[in-house]
Amino acid sequence: MSGQKDESMKLEMWNLAVDLFPICRSLTGPGVRETLAILSRHLPELRLHEVSSGTKAFDWVVPKEWRINSAYILDSNGKKIIDFDKNNLHVVGYSEPVSEWLSLEDLQDHLYSIPEQPDAIPYVTSYYKARWGFCLSHNLRQSLKEGKYFVHIDSSLSEGSLTYGEIFIPGSTEEEIFFSTYICHPSMANNEISGPVVLTNLLKWISSRETNRYSYRAVFIPETIGSLVYISRKLEHLRSTMIAGFNITCVGDSRNYSFLPSRNGNTLSDKALLHTISFTAPSFKKYTWRDRGSDERQYCAPGIDLPVATFSRSKFGEYPEYHTSLDNLDLITPEALQESYLLLQRTIEAIEDNYTPLVTVLGEPQLGKRGLYPDLSIKGSWDSTQLMMDIISYCDGNLDLLTIANLLEVPIWKVAPIIRKLREHGLINLL
Amino acid sequence: MSGQKDESMKLEMWNLAVDLFPICRSLTGPGVRETLAILSRHLPELRLHEVSSGTKAFDWVVPKEWRINSAYILDSNGKKIIDFDKNNLHVVGYSEPVSEWLSLEDLQDHLYSIPEQPDAIPYVTSYYKARWGFCLSHNLRQSLKEGKYFVHIDSSLSEGSLTYGEIFIPGSTEEEIFFSTYICHPSMANNEISGPVVLTNLLKWISSRETNRYSYRAVFIPETIGSLVYISRKLEHLRSTMIAGFNITCVGDSRNYSFLPSRNGNTLSDKALLHTISFTAPSFKKYTWRDRGSDERQYCAPGIDLPVATFSRSKFGEYPEYHTSLDNLDLITPEALQESYLLLQRTIEAIEDNYTPLVTVLGEPQLGKRGLYPDLSIKGSWDSTQLMMDIISYCDGNLDLLTIANLLEVPIWKVAPIIRKLREHGLINLL
Amino acid sequence: MSGQKDESMKLEMWNLAVDLFPICRSLTGPGVRETLAILSRHLPELRLHEVSSGTKAFDWVVPKEWRINSAYILDSNGKKIIDFDKNNLHVVGYSEPVSEWLSLEDLQDHLYSIPEQPDAIPYVTSYYKARWGFCLSHNLRQSLKEGKYFVHIDSSLSEGSLTYGEIFIPGSTEEEIFFSTYICHPSMANNEISGPVVLTNLLKWISSRETNRYSYRAVFIPETIGSLVYISRKLEHLRSTMIAGFNITCVGDSRNYSFLPSRNGNTLSDKALLHTISFTAPSFKKYTWRDRGSDERQYCAPGIDLPVATFSRSKFGEYPEYHTSLDNLDLITPEALQESYLLLQRTIEAIEDNYTPLVTVLGEPQLGKRGLYPDLSIKGSWDSTQLMMDIISYCDGNLDLLTIANLLEVPIWKVAPIIRKLREHGLINLL
Repeated sequence: MSGQKDESMKLEMWNLAVDLFPICRSLTGPGVRETLAILSRHLPELRLHEVSSGTKAFDWVVPKEWRINSAYILDSNGKKIIDFDKNNLHVVGYSEPVSEWLSLEDLQDHLYSIPEQPDAIPYVTSYYKARWGFCLSHNLRQSLKEGKYFVHIDSSLSEGSLTYGEIFIPGSTEEEIFFSTYICHPSMANNEISGPVVLTNLLKWISSRETNRYSYRAVFIPETIGSLVYISRKLEHLRSTMIAGFNITCVGDSRNYSFLPSRNGNTLSDKALLHTISFTAPSFKKYTWRDRGSDERQYCAPGIDLPVATFSRSKFGEYPEYHTSLDNLDLITPEALQESYLLLQRTIEAIEDNYTPLVTVLGEPQLGKRGLYPDLSIKGSWDSTQLMMDIISYCDGNLDLLTIANLLEVPIWKVAPIIRKLREHGLINLL
Repeated sequence: MSGQKDESMKLEMWNLAVDLFPICRSLTGPGVRETLAILSRHLPELRLHEVSSGTKAFDWVVPKEWRINSAYILDSNGKKIIDFDKNNLHVVGYSEPVSEWLSLEDLQDHLYSIPEQPDAIPYVTSYYKARWGFCLSHNLRQSLKEGKYFVHIDSSLSEGSLTYGEIFIPGSTEEEIFFSTYICHPSMANNEISGPVVLTNLLKWISSRETNRYSYRAVFIPETIGSLVYISRKLEHLRSTMIAGFNITCVGDSRNYSFLPSRNGNTLSDKALLHTISFTAPSFKKYTWRDRGSDERQYCAPGIDLPVATFSRSKFGEYPEYHTSLDNLDLITPEALQESYLLLQRTIEAIEDNYTPLVTVLGEPQLGKRGLYPDLSIKGSWDSTQLMMDIISYCDGNLDLLTIANLLEVPIWKVAPIIRKLREHGLINLL
Repeated sequence: MSGQKDESMKLEMWNLAVDLFPICRSLTGPGVRETLAILSRHLPELRLHEVSSGTKAFDWVVPKEWRINSAYILDSNGKKIIDFDKNNLHVVGYSEPVSEWLSLEDLQDHLYSIPEQPDAIPYVTSYYKARWGFCLSHNLRQSLKEGKYFVHIDSSLSEGSLTYGEIFIPGSTEEEIFFSTYICHPSMANNEISGPVVLTNLLKWISSRETNRYSYRAVFIPETIGSLVYISRKLEHLRSTMIAGFNITCVGDSRNYSFLPSRNGNTLSDKALLHTISFTAPSFKKYTWRDRGSDERQYCAPGIDLPVATFSRSKFGEYPEYHTSLDNLDLITPEALQESYLLLQRTIEAIEDNYTPLVTVLGEPQLGKRGLYPDLSIKGSWDSTQLMMDIISYCDGNLDLLTIANLLEVPIWKVAPIIRKLREHGLINLL
C-alpha cells in the first residue's frame, strides 16, 4: 500500500471517528439513527431496520425508545454544576424525566461516581428498570456542599423502535463471512466508535475488491438486545451460510492486541484470527470464552452457536478508562485504527486464500527445470527454496493453507504467494 | 453441618476405630467375622457371605481357614520374650502350629525384623506357602543371646470359609455406585481400619438421604482373594450396573490426600474423585496406575475393567509406618477420618448432581427481569453474576456438570446450587 | 554377543568402509557400479538394476551417465596445483570436459571454496545444468597468483544408465520392513559410506536369523533420482506390503543420535525407532519433518506416503564437516558404526516382538503358585515382580508391546523376555 493512500485512509478513519464521537447514543433513539446516517454516507448499501418497542427477541423484549433533550443540576445559587450538553455521560442512560429540588442527601441516591478514578465520569445505564440519575467525577461530588439542588432531566420513554444497519456484499459463493459491531454507547472512543470506524473502512475495501470468494454480511447494532433481535430474525439464514464471523470492539487504542475465541473455540474464525494476530503481534493477549462480554455472548450462546470470535486491542473491561469519560479521543490513535483495519484485512485474505492445495506430481517436483531451484548443489543451496519445498511437502489434499502455515510457523501471507507461483507452474491444484 | 453433629460424628468414627483395632484379622477366620459383626451393628443391612475353602475364583483358590489361639517365645529361663497376646503382628499370618526348643541360630530363620526401622514390628504373611514365623523389632532381635528358645504357636489351618460383607442401598435407578474396602489385616490403623470406619459412616449417610439418584453397593472383604471371589461371583452384574466405583484404603492419617486412577483413567470415578480432591486439597498426590497395589488391581484387571479408582490419604507403600506396628492409633486422627468421609460425601454428591444441563432459551436469558442480575449497569456489575452467566453459557446439552465445573475451574459444589436456582426459574432442563 | 564376535564385526565394517571410501561415486557411472560390486561380495543376494538415461520417473528423468578419467589445473609453470587423483572432491560432479588456458580472473568463475572453512574442499554438483568447475580449499584459492592456468577435465556425459542394488529376504509373512541408503557421493565418510556399511552388516544379520516374522527389503541407490526411479517402479508393491521403513544415512560419527520422523509422524517406523533411540541414547536429537533432506523426501511425499523414518548420528546438514573433504575416515569410528548397527538391530527386534498380548485369566494371575512371586509377603516384596505385574496389567488385547513398554517407561528389550516367560506359563496369548 502506497504511503499516500495509507495516510489518506488514516485521515478518513480519524475524521469519521471525530464525527461519531459526540453523538449521544443509547439502545434506541435518535443517537443511533444519527450514527447510522453518517455511516450510510460511507456505505451507501447499508440498509436500516426499525424494530418496534415490545417486539420479542427470544427471552427479551425491545424496550421503549429513549429520547433526551437536556439535563442539568443547579446548585442553590442557580449555578449549573452538571450539564448534559457538556458531556452526555452525565446522565444515566434511559433516565426518566425529573424536575425538582432535593437536599444533597436525597440527591446522593441518584449520583454515580468512581472513588478510585476521581477524575472520571462513569458510564451508567438502567435500561430495564425505571430510575433517573447523574454521573459525575468523584472530585466534583466530594466538593458538593450541603444545601438544595435542582435536578432537571427532559427525557421521554415511549413506544418507538430499535434501529440497526445491515449490509450485504455478494461474493462467488453463498457462504458468508460476518461482522458485527455496536452503536449504542454515548461519547466513548475505544469502546464504541473504534468498532464502527474500522468496520466501515473494512467493508469499503471488501466492496472494492475485484472478486470475493465469499459473500460478506455486517451489522451495526445496539449491543445485546440488538444482536438478540438480529439473530432472532435471521438465525436460520446465519446458521446455513456463515462460515466465519467476527465481533469487532475496542479496536482503537495502541496498547495491545486481544483475541477472544468463540464458545466452540475451533471454528474457522478462531483459526484465522488467531493466526493473523499471532504473526502480527506475537505478544497479543489470548483470552478465553470466560472473558467474553460483548455480542459474542449471543452469537455463540448454546443453540445459536455461530462461529463468531472477537477481535479487540485493549479489551472491554481490561483497561482503566473503560466505561468512563476517560475513554475519549485521546485514548485512540489513527495509527491504531489503521493497524486494526489491516489486521482484519489480513484475516479476510487468510480466509479467502484458505484453499486445500494438492500437489500434481508424485515425489518431489523437479523445481530446477522450472527455475525454482538452484542448478548448482552446494552446502546451503537447499536453504533458498526450503520454504517452497516445505509447502509442497504438505500439499497432500488434506491440509488447508492455514494449517500448513501453522505447521511451518510462517504467516499465511508468506505461504499464499508461493502457492500462487506453484499454481502458475501447474504443480498445485486447489481443492 | 452443625458443629455438634460434626463432633458426635467424629467421636462415633473414632470409637469404631478403637473397637476394630485390636482384632487379629487375616484372610479368613474369626477375626474377619468379629470385625463384620461389629460393622453390622452400625449397618444393619450388611449381609455376610461365607465362601468355602477350595472354591475357585478365576486363577485363585480360597485358602484354608486360619485360627490362632496363642503364640509366644520363651527364653532358656522360661521368660516370655514375645507374646502374640501383646501384639498380634508378632506372628506371621497363616503360621502353622509349632511347639519346640530351638537354638538361636535355628530360630533366626523364623524371625522377621526391619533393620532400618529397629523399633517397628513388621507385618508378614505367608498365605500360600506353609511356614511359621515370628515378627519382632530389630532392637529386640539384636538383644537375643545365644541359647535355647522355646517357640509355641497354637494355630490351625483347616477347611472353613472366607467371609465378606456386602450392603446394597437401592436408589431411583438400577445404576450403581460401588465401594470396596478390606478387612484382612491385624492391628494396623491407617492401612486397615480407617477404610472400614470411613466407609461405614459414608453408608450410614447414604442410607439416611431422602432420595438417591443411584443405587449403592459396598463390600467389606479380605484383600485380593476377597475381591477376586467377589468379582468372580458378580462380574456380569457389576459390569452391567456399575457407573463408578471406589476403593477406600489408608484414609486415616492427616498428612496428604492421594488419588490413584482406574486402569482406564477416564471413568466417571476418576473424573469425580479427581475433581473433589483437586478442589479440596490442591496439593494432593496424583498417582498413576503403575502405583496401584490394593484391590483396584483386580477390579480394573484386563477383561474385568470396572470403573474403580482408589482414594487414600498417605497411600499404602508410601509412608514409613506402612505394614508395621507403627501404623497404629497414634498415626490416625479423628479429624483426618472425618475429612476423608467428607471428601467421599462430596464425591457422591458430585456424581448425583452430575446431570447434563440444557438452557431453555436461545441467546442469554434476561436474568434482570428475574432478579438474578443487577438492574443498574456500571463498571463491575457483571462480576456479581459472572459465574451464573458462565454456567449458563456452557449449558448446551453436551457437557455434564463436572465438565462445566472443570472448564470454569470451580468446584461442582459451587455450580450445583446455581443450577438448582436456574431450574427454579425454568431456565435449565436436566438431561 | 561375545567380545570376540563383537571385535570381528567391528573390524569387518571398518574394512568395508576403507574399501568404499576412495571410490569416485556420482549419480551414475562406474563409481556406483564399483561400489555395488564390493557390496555384492558381502551380500550375494543383492540384485543390480540398470535404468537407462532418459527414463521418466514421475516429474524427473534419469540423466546421462557421467564418466571421469582425470582432471587437474596447471599453473603457468606447469605445476599441478589441483589433481582429481589426489581427491575426487576437486571436480564439480557432472562437470563437462574442458581443456584450455585461462586467466586467474576467468578461472575464478569455475572455482568453489568455503571462506568459513578455509581448509575444506567443498562437495559441489551440477547434475541438471551443463557446466564445469573445480573445488578447492579457500587457503589454496587465496594463494593463487595472477597469471595463466591450464584447466583439464577428461570427462564424458553420454547415454547410459543409473544403477542401483536391491535385496529381498523373505520372512513368515508378506509384510515387509524396508531399508534405504544411498551410494552416490564421492569420498565422504559419514554422509555416504557409513550408511551402506551399516546396512550391509544389518542385512547379513537379518539373513542369518533362524526365522523372521517379516520379510525384509533394502535398496542401495543414488539419492533423489534413485529413490524416485525405485518408487516409480515399485509403488504399488511398496504400498501394499511395507509396514515400516528406514532411511539410513550419516550413521558413522560418535557425536550424537538423531531421529527424523516420517511425514505422517505416527507410523510403526516412527514408533519403533523413537523407542529404541530414546532408551539407547536419551539425549538424542529429535528432528521434525521440516528438517528432512534425504530420501525420506521422496518416500513420504504426498501421494506416496510410505512409512519411512530416518536414522542418523550427526544428521546431514547439521555437522561442520558435512559435504566437505573433512567428512572423511577420521570423522567416523568403528565403535560408532557398530553402535548404529546395534540400534537398528534393536529396532528390528522391537518390530518383530511387537505383538499385542492378551492375558489368559481374569483378575491378576496367581504368580506365586508358578514360582513367579515371593511366597512371603513383607514390605517391599511387591517390588521384585512389579514390572511383571505391570506388564500383565496392560495385556488387555488392545495395546501392542511398544505401547506397553512406553507406558511403563522401560525399553521393549526388558519387556519382551518377560512376555516370553509368561507365555511359557500359559498366561499370555499373542494377537
